[in-house]
Amino acid sequence: MAEDMVRLDYGYCTSEGLGGDGAGVTPELLQARQQRIDQVHQRIAQQRKQGELGFFELPYQDDDKLQPIREQAERLGSFCDTLVVLGIGGSALGATAVDMALAGFWRHAFERKVGAMRLLVADNPEPRSFGQLLENLDLKRTAFNVISKSGTTAETMSQFMVVKELLSLALGPDEALKRLVFTTDPSSGNLRLLAGREPIPCLDVPPNVGGRFSVLSAVGLLPLACAGHDLDALLAGARDMAERCSLPGILENPAYLFATLAVHFMNRGRNILVMMPYCSDLFGLAQWFAQLWAESLGKAHTLDGELVNLGQTPVAAVGTTDQHSQVQLYMEGPLDKLVCFVTLDDYGNDLEIPRLYQDIDSLSYLGGHTMAELTQAEARATAAALASQGRPSLALRMPRLDEYHLGQVLMLLEAATVAAGGLLKINPLDQPGVELGKVLTYGLMGRKGFEEQARRMEALDLSGKYQL
Amino acid sequence: MAEDMVRLDYGYCTSEGLGGDGAGVTPELLQARQQRIDQVHQRIAQQRKQGELGFFELPYQDDDKLQPIREQAERLGSFCDTLVVLGIGGSALGATAVDMALAGFWRHAFERKVGAMRLLVADNPEPRSFGQLLENLDLKRTAFNVISKSGTTAETMSQFMVVKELLSLALGPDEALKRLVFTTDPSSGNLRLLAGREPIPCLDVPPNVGGRFSVLSAVGLLPLACAGHDLDALLAGARDMAERCSLPGILENPAYLFATLAVHFMNRGRNILVMMPYCSDLFGLAQWFAQLWAESLGKAHTLDGELVNLGQTPVAAVGTTDQHSQVQLYMEGPLDKLVCFVTLDDYGNDLEIPRLYQDIDSLSYLGGHTMAELTQAEARATAAALASQGRPSLALRMPRLDEYHLGQVLMLLEAATVAAGGLLKINPLDQPGVELGKVLTYGLMGRKGFEEQARRMEALDLSGKYQL
Repeated sequence: MAEDMVRLDYGYCTSEGLGGDGAGVTPELLQARQQRIDQVHQRIAQQRKQGELGFFELPYQDDDKLQPIREQAERLGSFCDTLVVLGIGGSALGATAVDMALAGFWRHAFERKVGAMRLLVADNPEPRSFGQLLENLDLKRTAFNVISKSGTTAETMSQFMVVKELLSLALGPDEALKRLVFTTDPSSGNLRLLAGREPIPCLDVPPNVGGRFSVLSAVGLLPLACAGHDLDALLAGARDMAERCSLPGILENPAYLFATLAVHFMNRGRNILVMMPYCSDLFGLAQWFAQLWAESLGKAHTLDGELVNLGQTPVAAVGTTDQHSQVQLYMEGPLDKLVCFVTLDDYGNDLEIPRLYQDIDSLSYLGGHTMAELTQAEARATAAALASQGRPSLALRMPRLDEYHLGQVLMLLEAATVAAGGLLKINPLDQPGVELGKVLTYGLMGRKGFEEQARRMEALDLSGKYQL
Repeated sequence: MAEDMVRLDYGYCTSEGLGGDGAGVTPELLQARQQRIDQVHQRIAQQRKQGELGFFELPYQDDDKLQPIREQAERLGSFCDTLVVLGIGGSALGATAVDMALAGFWRHAFERKVGAMRLLVADNPEPRSFGQLLENLDLKRTAFNVISKSGTTAETMSQFMVVKELLSLALGPDEALKRLVFTTDPSSGNLRLLAGREPIPCLDVPPNVGGRFSVLSAVGLLPLACAGHDLDALLAGARDMAERCSLPGILENPAYLFATLAVHFMNRGRNILVMMPYCSDLFGLAQWFAQLWAESLGKAHTLDGELVNLGQTPVAAVGTTDQHSQVQLYMEGPLDKLVCFVTLDDYGNDLEIPRLYQDIDSLSYLGGHTMAELTQAEARATAAALASQGRPSLALRMPRLDEYHLGQVLMLLEAATVAAGGLLKINPLDQPGVELGKVLTYGLMGRKGFEEQARRMEALDLSGKYQL
């Protein structure tokens, strides 16, 4: 089993890899950090016992949780070929990440494999993209999964209302209801209420699982089941990683090591974490991680009576593509970054570069290699070049890209995020900072009870006053 | 005409918008900055006269430059329905940005409009995504545009060699050649050489136009013509904006104002610039800008004998989506960001939210509004909420999303980037920092003459030594 695990390669975070002034870690420093990790470990164990870290237990969910998900996927697949997810943030990014990884970057451009539904995640209510989507769907063959824990998310609920009306007008109210599935809180909220009024199937988001940690709940699993992915393998990978991420030692638990390295460099001015998989199919994973890391660790926090603003800004990038877009900055710009590469040992179907143009030196060396060899060489060279300038990086090394190894990566990054929250002494599970924008929007939209926010918005508004 | 221009709204960069400690600009400060801008203006005028800023003149290119582009687009369109671009970085991002903006975020999921080719930009040679693309293409109906100024780009040239062999085997060598168009240097480089050996049409990248500034040259224009977009309107927009960006005054030239504000906040610890359009169709524009800003301004630079590392890391985000992913961090995280929103006055086809659930307070306020109203309210509320915490933002306000206004935005951001380079006293046109990674890759791939780099790579390599 061990050789089938995702590895955390951190050579270019060490003083050996980075040279004298690169602020790299030493074995002694990591050993010294174990004490902080011991505290974090205790706290996490306690939180898990109290049921506060629901995501950690999702890989162990038993069949009576999964059965309703599979049943809905089968039912929808029996008369629909497309599933549209109406959800935003944590209700969208997990399914996109896994589906893009497995069905491929170009999944929308070509036919799906037989028996799988096409998965379209509509996470933006603005009418251009959402309108284009609705105009082009064959509504008779399309189902909609509405995902919102509270059922108050303005974007998602607006989209739902538009879709409900559209379906009813096109197919009649009964056929409309058949094409809807809600994923929401098991007992409260608007969607649960509406599902009591009309017969709409409802799947549960466990109350102790926050949006950005919900990919392995029904939030991610229903869309992924519809898209034909192997839930058992995904959960098995997450389970094997959850076991490792329950170990106490900094050098046996990759989540603790990841968190320790990230916080080490964060405390040394690296306020940016670049997540850069060397595979376009994994761009969605980088975007999923960007929410996880940003929302969990970006926190205002009172420490010894003083307000501090913590956080490390995630940047989603892709190799080799962004070598020709971002790496100039990563090499020569400010020393403000830690880069996390994701590489594949085995790319699956490889492509051989034919031996053409053997008389041209600047081309002939390519022939005979494969595209995977080129990609892997570029990943190694980029990391080495960065390290030679004292710029740290680490790498998640995936044996292959499949459900099992994706499950591992998801769990590793979730556990690492919570551990980093522990090291920073902040709560990685809340998001109080989005409240103000939300209520100002209510004010602008004329929601009852938000008249004061409407006035506050008016006072803050400068639209057009300074404009060129 | 003026009311049809993209506006730069900078209220939340001012001391009025940000409050006391937000480091906002005052009218007096902007006036004082005019002196620095005068120097930059002189330098840019001089560079333009010497033909060093080719991108600035692209909107004025005459018909004998455009005719070969239109001819190739027409020829390819007569027997192909798909154009695949083989190119990376500046050879890919411009066409993607404009095509995504105009053909829509969901363009790959549905049929194109009649008469337009489907545009697939293959900017990553890794064999999973590239392999998926090749497997699914109907080669008989597919053309390939190979874009590389030097013809040595390892990624693009490898892809080209794979495609050439594939086409020849599938259709025979003559039919293969018919499906190829090169875009490259007018007189030198491998692609120009190969076009001399076999009859492959070749379009020019002007020597004084760098990759990331090349969207309005044949690099961007051939793919965009194939995809059915209106080149004349795109260039007209760029031309109208180029005129404004040639004015000397900081409060009459939006490029100078953008650059001044970005550098102002950069010098005050904002090492991150978030580009956040409130429209999924504009995500490609944000990624295009990310290369432009990163590669142009991310520079090691010797100032008074001391090495400084300059640059502002661009982050591509999308509203409203990333309000549920990144805004928590933007609101409460470190004071390290300047956000640039892009908004639309008119979203085109709008969607009305039906008046459902009038008995539920947390839903009833939505009905009767449109999706554009919701999106615009969220954009205003988010900017106001950020400003209330002393967090600066600006906004590009586009009257509509079409070729003409996109052309304006492209030119404004290119001119602003060069102006920012001038304010920072660095060369925004080069990218010396990517060289090391490139030659280390050559070493790993066994290219003749790079044996020393192979040894250096071996010395730097730590693969697997520190691994968990």
